[in-house]
Amino acid sequence: MKLGLNLSFGIKRWLGGDAMAEIVAGELGIDKVQFTWDLVDPWWPEAQRDAIARDYAEGFRKAGVAVEGSFGGLASYTYSHFLAPMPELRALGKEHLRRAIDMTAAMEVPCAGMPFGSYSAADAKDPARRETIYNEAVEAWIDLSRHAKRQGLTSLVVEPVPLATEFPSSAQDALRLMKDLDGATDVPVRLMVDWGHVLFTPLFGKDADMDLWMETVGDYIAAFHIQQTDGLLDRHWNFTREGIVTPQRLKDFWNRHKLTDQTYFLEIIYPFEETDEHVLSDMKAALALLRAA
Amino acid sequence: MKLGLNLSFGIKRWLGGDAMAEIVAGELGIDKVQFTWDLVDPWWPEAQRDAIARDYAEGFRKAGVAVEGSFGGLASYTYSHFLAPMPELRALGKEHLRRAIDMTAAMEVPCAGMPFGSYSAADAKDPARRETIYNEAVEAWIDLSRHAKRQGLTSLVVEPVPLATEFPSSAQDALRLMKDLDGATDVPVRLMVDWGHVLFTPLFGKDADMDLWMETVGDYIAAFHIQQTDGLLDRHWNFTREGIVTPQRLKDFWNRHKLTDQTYFLEIIYPFEETDEHVLSDMKAALALLRAA
Repeated sequence: MKLGLNLSFGIKRWLGGDAMAEIVAGELGIDKVQFTWDLVDPWWPEAQRDAIARDYAEGFRKAGVAVEGSFGGLASYTYSHFLAPMPELRALGKEHLRRAIDMTAAMEVPCAGMPFGSYSAADAKDPARRETIYNEAVEAWIDLSRHAKRQGLTSLVVEPVPLATEFPSSAQDALRLMKDLDGATDVPVRLMVDWGHVLFTPLFGKDADMDLWMETVGDYIAAFHIQQTDGLLDRHWNFTREGIVTPQRLKDFWNRHKLTDQTYFLEIIYPFEETDEHVLSDMKAALALLRAA
Repeated sequence: MKLGLNLSFGIKRWLGGDAMAEIVAGELGIDKVQFTWDLVDPWWPEAQRDAIARDYAEGFRKAGVAVEGSFGGLASYTYSHFLAPMPELRALGKEHLRRAIDMTAAMEVPCAGMPFGSYSAADAKDPARRETIYNEAVEAWIDLSRHAKRQGLTSLVVEPVPLATEFPSSAQDALRLMKDLDGATDVPVRLMVDWGHVLFTPLFGKDADMDLWMETVGDYIAAFHIQQTDGLLDRHWNFTREGIVTPQRLKDFWNRHKLTDQTYFLEIIYPFEETDEHVLSDMKAALALLRAA
């Protein structure tokens, strides 16, 4: 298994390139990360933002850690972005990703991504509104793919989420989006598929099945988020907890589908009130379990 | 008990002033709210940001709902702000609150607030670094109190949080901050005290006691966040769940301390993957329990 770390586990704890690289490479022995916008907010004024983002990129470079992409985190996911009910909010969603692309380019990182956005309670139940807003979102991503290419990025990624009020959520949704974007964008737009999202049974029932996703959209999957879950909520627990995603299950899937390139990024979200000492020791213990599989 | 709603429960679900006011006043029968920056990001470009913020203010005004203050939510809490390790991050924390004050003024709302910020893992263990950064943060808030007054606000509030790596966390911490600010600011800076933070036993042990807070800093408490919790994590559950904060306990506290003005703002944070229907019915059920106490 090709293991990497989404940096969500370390937000507010280990800040700045050298401190974070020491944790990732020195303490955890990992050489691939997905940078989270929870460390650097794309909305910060460009000059200050890019200086801080470059400091992380430089810290990782010195430590031999590859930053494979940058990705929206908790702060970004708080807003509705491309599927918001008002055009003003949708325009801000587009500006948010445009700014994230710029920040990613400043880090000399090749890829940026996020979930697509959230319909309001009212729009989610209105098929015509959903369709109109979806089509506008597809156009916005096509436009942003041109910006991404100009800025030197080589791909963008979308993350499906386990909510009927967002899009894409199912494998079929994801396939539709990939087909609607394919060939129209200046850089490829691909999928970041999260194990805990796919296995969310309250929404997907018997289709909560990662093999079904491989059959349906396997060719479009750029990488995976891995997390432990009970399948009842989107837990983002670590693998030190019991749940339905065992290291052995991840390993069997990797072998069964003959995966080689699509990094398994651990995306672990700790309560803010967990201690730094617990987070670090728990990350070490979880990585030991994954490496032993 | 004077009940109000922090709007965190509704983010991404009911957007825009009319839709949110219909939920708050029409569906839930509440006439006091605390607006959350998770609905409007203070970092958004000012013209677009303030137009959206004013639409919420106008929606609530028409529905007879008082917006008592605006407050940082999940997105804001993701970053380290005033206690960050690098001066550049601390400056961005100050700019964040300055922008939130401007947005609050645009809404003609009298008060804005947030937690103070988070030390890095390294700084949290270094008393001298903590002290230096704390003193800088106090100066920043004094400066921002001048800005708040110029903008027409009448107070600012700080929320203590249950983390040894942040400040203030204990009642003694909060008292120190209040004394350091008292008399130096152009508008009063007061406390927003969260029941679930105070009752967090892993950090506070036997001092996880709201009466202790009343004895220590009662005079400085502007309002409360209420939430259900098991005391083991900062849960922000609703009162439909079992836990240690019963409606009767809230009522007894209110009567024992002869409270009159300090609103109990329900600050309920649902998993994003909960359905809109569940959130609305659960909010109704919880308010019925609180009103029956």
